[in-house]
Amino acid sequence: MHERIAIYPGTFDPVTYGHIDVLKRASKLFDKIIISVGESSSKSSLFTVDQRIKMLSQAVSDIKNAEVDSFSGLLVDYAKKKKASAVIRGLRAVSDFEYEFQMALTNQTLEPDVETVFLTPSQNYSFISSSLVKEIAKNGGDVSYFVPKIAEKMLKEKFGSNH
Amino acid sequence: MHERIAIYPGTFDPVTYGHIDVLKRASKLFDKIIISVGESSSKSSLFTVDQRIKMLSQAVSDIKNAEVDSFSGLLVDYAKKKKASAVIRGLRAVSDFEYEFQMALTNQTLEPDVETVFLTPSQNYSFISSSLVKEIAKNGGDVSYFVPKIAEKMLKEKFGSNH
Amino acid sequence: MHERIAIYPGTFDPVTYGHIDVLKRASKLFDKIIISVGESSSKSSLFTVDQRIKMLSQAVSDIKNAEVDSFSGLLVDYAKKKKASAVIRGLRAVSDFEYEFQMALTNQTLEPDVETVFLTPSQNYSFISSSLVKEIAKNGGDVSYFVPKIAEKMLKEKFGSNH
Amino acid sequence: MHERIAIYPGTFDPVTYGHIDVLKRASKLFDKIIISVGESSSKSSLFTVDQRIKMLSQAVSDIKNAEVDSFSGLLVDYAKKKKASAVIRGLRAVSDFEYEFQMALTNQTLEPDVETVFLTPSQNYSFISSSLVKEIAKNGGDVSYFVPKIAEKMLKEKFGSNH
Amino acid sequence: MHERIAIYPGTFDPVTYGHIDVLKRASKLFDKIIISVGESSSKSSLFTVDQRIKMLSQAVSDIKNAEVDSFSGLLVDYAKKKKASAVIRGLRAVSDFEYEFQMALTNQTLEPDVETVFLTPSQNYSFISSSLVKEIAKNGGDVSYFVPKIAEKMLKEKFGSNH
Amino acid sequence: MHERIAIYPGTFDPVTYGHIDVLKRASKLFDKIIISVGESSSKSSLFTVDQRIKMLSQAVSDIKNAEVDSFSGLLVDYAKKKKASAVIRGLRAVSDFEYEFQMALTNQTLEPDVETVFLTPSQNYSFISSSLVKEIAKNGGDVSYFVPKIAEKMLKEKFGSNH
Repeated sequence: MHERIAIYPGTFDPVTYGHIDVLKRASKLFDKIIISVGESSSKSSLFTVDQRIKMLSQAVSDIKNAEVDSFSGLLVDYAKKKKASAVIRGLRAVSDFEYEFQMALTNQTLEPDVETVFLTPSQNYSFISSSLVKEIAKNGGDVSYFVPKIAEKMLKEKFGSNH
Repeated sequence: MHERIAIYPGTFDPVTYGHIDVLKRASKLFDKIIISVGESSSKSSLFTVDQRIKMLSQAVSDIKNAEVDSFSGLLVDYAKKKKASAVIRGLRAVSDFEYEFQMALTNQTLEPDVETVFLTPSQNYSFISSSLVKEIAKNGGDVSYFVPKIAEKMLKEKFGSNH
Repeated sequence: MHERIAIYPGTFDPVTYGHIDVLKRASKLFDKIIISVGESSSKSSLFTVDQRIKMLSQAVSDIKNAEVDSFSGLLVDYAKKKKASAVIRGLRAVSDFEYEFQMALTNQTLEPDVETVFLTPSQNYSFISSSLVKEIAKNGGDVSYFVPKIAEKMLKEKFGSNH
Repeated sequence: MHERIAIYPGTFDPVTYGHIDVLKRASKLFDKIIISVGESSSKSSLFTVDQRIKMLSQAVSDIKNAEVDSFSGLLVDYAKKKKASAVIRGLRAVSDFEYEFQMALTNQTLEPDVETVFLTPSQNYSFISSSLVKEIAKNGGDVSYFVPKIAEKMLKEKFGSNH
Repeated sequence: MHERIAIYPGTFDPVTYGHIDVLKRASKLFDKIIISVGESSSKSSLFTVDQRIKMLSQAVSDIKNAEVDSFSGLLVDYAKKKKASAVIRGLRAVSDFEYEFQMALTNQTLEPDVETVFLTPSQNYSFISSSLVKEIAKNGGDVSYFVPKIAEKMLKEKFGSNH
Repeated sequence: MHERIAIYPGTFDPVTYGHIDVLKRASKLFDKIIISVGESSSKSSLFTVDQRIKMLSQAVSDIKNAEVDSFSGLLVDYAKKKKASAVIRGLRAVSDFEYEFQMALTNQTLEPDVETVFLTPSQNYSFISSSLVKEIAKNGGDVSYFVPKIAEKMLKEKFGSNH
């Protein structure tokens, strides 16, 4: 039995309890999970890549086999470089599924050795989205139900001047 | 690292290339996969459980870490008994997803230690359904694109008298 | 302001915490809610209409403005007879939505004075389905997370001989 | 330019204004449309194949290039025998789409020369379903908004004894 | 019986017959409906908030218990301030449903006393979208089927110079 | 029998094997297909309209009854000017379907004489999207599975400086 490595890629802008729930589930199925911030140039993010890495590092510090990283370029190339056999994706809703399905089939074509593995977060977290969290934080709402302490703190710093 | 076992449950009435594709993908992620025929009393099947076990055994004989079995009762109880940490499900379409999602959340509630893992078959197999295969076979159509040789043979034996 | 009455129709075979959650939400929006068991001849049910009325009566006894009833025939005819201005439906998933949408538009055509009102249960209950509950109970699983005490008891009486 | 023939297959149990709308649209795109009742053995129908042919013949008599027929066996075999280059399907909703998509891909594999062509009925008819129509007629409701006169008459004959 | 108030929030850029149909339905279920323009800073709109309030005021002047307003900040905070027990949302399609479901569950978490109520517009209006209306108006198409007179007039003023 | 003309409109930024597959299917059903680049001002494209026309012209040169063009303004106006009786759309997924359905119903209202005809690409191409292709090309991935030679070449010229 060789070491089984999986990548859990995402934007994590910010990380939510939904992401952490998916990560915990994945951490039981693989020997190592690399949770990795995608440095997409096209999507404008609230937090910098470095801020998101910092946020993730604190939020997942109790998951022993999780490692925080970032990547640019094609996900399948990154997965191969990291010797990962799987990419983890959380599925919350039908619209997630459609896009994810398309991505998974595209990645299968580009790199048959990397499998896409879908997990569903607990029903308590299945409706949380980073976009809604940002919208709530921006308007001074309480985000403590949705995101870990460190993300709440960093959101307050960003939007603090509004209140 | 302990041995990682997953259950791949289903009706397999009959087994299709879609099922085998999902099994192959799962077999790379886990140490052992138990592909297991559900003895559901409510669904009327074309093949008996024994016939389906025979069919599966031949169809997956080249996947070294796959084992064929059957089960009755609750899937989560069976998974625990087999010391499986995961249940594998193939996702082909949105309607699959909805039902599967509901099942996964129900099973999470009943048994938090068994994770549901979704995999997508290759696009070549994503549209194959056992029901359509039976319909085609019943009407004398060619099912060799959809099912392995043994299933094709057994379908011919069932419906042979019609042609 | 006249009294506002709504019908909450369903099969309730058995009633679940999801149904009760929807009923509680509706009870705050209307003056009276009639939760009503549809005597559909086509669908085979586990419990008789009388058993389901008994089950509902106990399960919803603390919701003061809820009344339990049963009906046969067209829902819109029943709603008019009861002077209801609305029909309540719980929406859990996309597949629910499609069928419900079709029903709502058909009922709009048959009877423009009765409005269909959709409510979403809390995320804790959004995945519960009566069919899965029956499947679990039949196989001796614990249904106490999904249904009220009275339903659990009545399910045990039905399936008791299996265990 | 050779003659372009399309098959419009269905159960038509009973025919609705939605079917007729799709047929009219198709009749402008092809030289001949064969609207054809599928003699499926598995689905239990309210009307016999002969009754459905009679109903369709009257209901579509004003569409000059439409022809009524019935078929058994595989749709693609029937289409080839009739020299049809296309199969027409009406799309009303997402759940239609999924099943239809699966069927279309299966038929593409079985017979690449027969194309599946999807049309959407007018919004006025997009929510009508034969099952709901039967349910309404059975309960004495008014189906004149949903089905042509001949279907209304034949439904009344079927369910007349109930009222 | 206390007064029942509902908020019908939206962008209304411009208001369509679909919105007005939903509002009319809601106006029969509640004592007062506040139709309220969301002052979202992130979404770029064609009309200013003031223009949209003016447009709405004229378009809904015949609905006696409707009041036009605008809001910024969190919808649930606004609903509480207005003593509303419900938020009205129109559901047209599956993609609407997914996003709305997510929003409704998020708002439930933030404020359990405000219920989200979904209504479906008549089939005649279920396909109308403000974005398509703007696209049509921009290209000189006839929008009189989709929007009330005042919206048509204001669209012509915006895009008049193009034709 | 008069000449039957269909428009196949799109962004084609870039053209993929999925588009070409849909075009080939359509070319068997109609006498002439005009594949036409929409000059949408709102969507920012990678290639200019002229580059996309050049790309399409080469990619579809072997389809004898296909003609390449571009258009601005309303699609239904363009279709009428070209004496087209149909607009061709490829359907790949549920999310496609929803938007397309809305568009088709809107266009039916604006111009009842132009029918929207949906075709499904082969399963080999059903997951390809122009956006993912651009993402892959930008990151130096191999797009030869997804797009014709000319598109591959032009993508390399665009992104060449990155590698």
